[in-house]
Amino acid sequence: MTPERKQKLISTLERRQPDLHLITDQVHKPRNLAALIRTCDAVGIPYVHTVTPKAGYIFKGTAKGSDRWVKMISHDSCEQAIQQVKLQGLKVYAAHFSDRAVDYRDVDYTIPCAILMGSEKEGVSDAAAGLADQHILIPMMGMVGSLNVSTAAGIIMVEAQNQRLKAGLYNESRLDPDEFTDTLFEWSFP
Amino acid sequence: MTPERKQKLISTLERRQPDLHLITDQVHKPRNLAALIRTCDAVGIPYVHTVTPKAGYIFKGTAKGSDRWVKMISHDSCEQAIQQVKLQGLKVYAAHFSDRAVDYRDVDYTIPCAILMGSEKEGVSDAAAGLADQHILIPMMGMVGSLNVSTAAGIIMVEAQNQRLKAGLYNESRLDPDEFTDTLFEWSFP
Ligand SMILES: C[S@@+](CC[C@H](N)C(=O)[O-])C[C@H]1O[C@@H](n2cnc3c(N)ncnc32)[C@H](O)[C@@H]1O
Ligand SMILES: C[S@@+](CC[C@H](N)C(=O)[O-])C[C@H]1O[C@@H](n2cnc3c(N)ncnc32)[C@H](O)[C@@H]1O
Repeated sequence: MTPERKQKLISTLERRQPDLHLITDQVHKPRNLAALIRTCDAVGIPYVHTVTPKAGYIFKGTAKGSDRWVKMISHDSCEQAIQQVKLQGLKVYAAHFSDRAVDYRDVDYTIPCAILMGSEKEGVSDAAAGLADQHILIPMMGMVGSLNVSTAAGIIMVEAQNQRLKAGLYNESRLDPDEFTDTLFEWSFP
Repeated sequence: MTPERKQKLISTLERRQPDLHLITDQVHKPRNLAALIRTCDAVGIPYVHTVTPKAGYIFKGTAKGSDRWVKMISHDSCEQAIQQVKLQGLKVYAAHFSDRAVDYRDVDYTIPCAILMGSEKEGVSDAAAGLADQHILIPMMGMVGSLNVSTAAGIIMVEAQNQRLKAGLYNESRLDPDEFTDTLFEWSFP
């Protein structure tokens, strides 16, 4: 490995945000999941919780290799994923059309939190929506009722990044030192 | 047509932004183009300029019918598209990785402008980049070098929407009255 490559890995790890997660509730299309993971890498989200649809599911798509840089944690249900991140002290913001939804820019992403995205067809389930701490929404001005799930996720994740940039959360390493070392070791394999 | 449906069409037209366009430079994947058009509808962009790749290209994907609400204008080259919007008095912001790129939030989307997106593989061509008034970039913190084109476009378009919401540009009808009437007529067909 070249020194430049090693430095790139280190400075990426220094910007990882261990207290910012993404949860996807049965996103069916592999290419949507791929785009989601690619944006997670870009904003420094280290963990994506997935609930894989029951039927035979093969992950492929243009993640541009970003699935290498983001840890996928799979769960049997979305409720299980939410409970797990809550035990870690994260608030859950569900991107969900409901009466209690607020503008996505009006919540605080600098606190430990997880962003929950619904599936293409069903959106966020009632059970999962009930467990979320807040519902958030990107205002829409057109005829069509929803955005593509990976587009919506990207918009929300980059808002989280903008808030965290402003708060200085990318300025010094925030990963647990052991995890930093282990991940660097793992990433260093060709 | 129900009165509610007619009202929905009218209030959507009242929010359309005739001085905000999107230009796509040879986006090859129909599903990326579909997601792009869906976001255009959502933020009230009435016109998408496309440069279709030379080889046999069939448009399909989950535009959720939004291609009905957005006018597609096709061009032989990206330069041609840029020249056309410039003649209409629009500034062109190219989403493009270059030395002169600024943070995408640091440009003014409330003035008449067009957002130019590059293709998945080649990005924005040198010729098109040279014609653009400014280059803009979404900061990235990860390993992978770029976002998915429809994700990046969504992030930039919603920033434009946020600025225009703040400036009150969705508060009253901005379409030319004749175009308003013609489009309402067109949209009213089942
Ligand atoms: C295609 S949408 C689901 C639409 C579904 N028919 C519904 O009514 O919930 C897929 C997911 O993308 C996210 N999404 C789409 N548009 C959004 C918006 N404007 N604001 C917030 N999230 C959005 C939500 O998480 C949603 O569950
Ligand atoms: C997959 S990228 C193209 C990557 C191409 N290999 C390059 O180096 O330009 C496709 C398009 O998405 C847009 N894009 C992707 N990531 C972006 C970012 N971080 N900021 C602004 N635009 C971006 C640009 O318009 C780009 O041309």
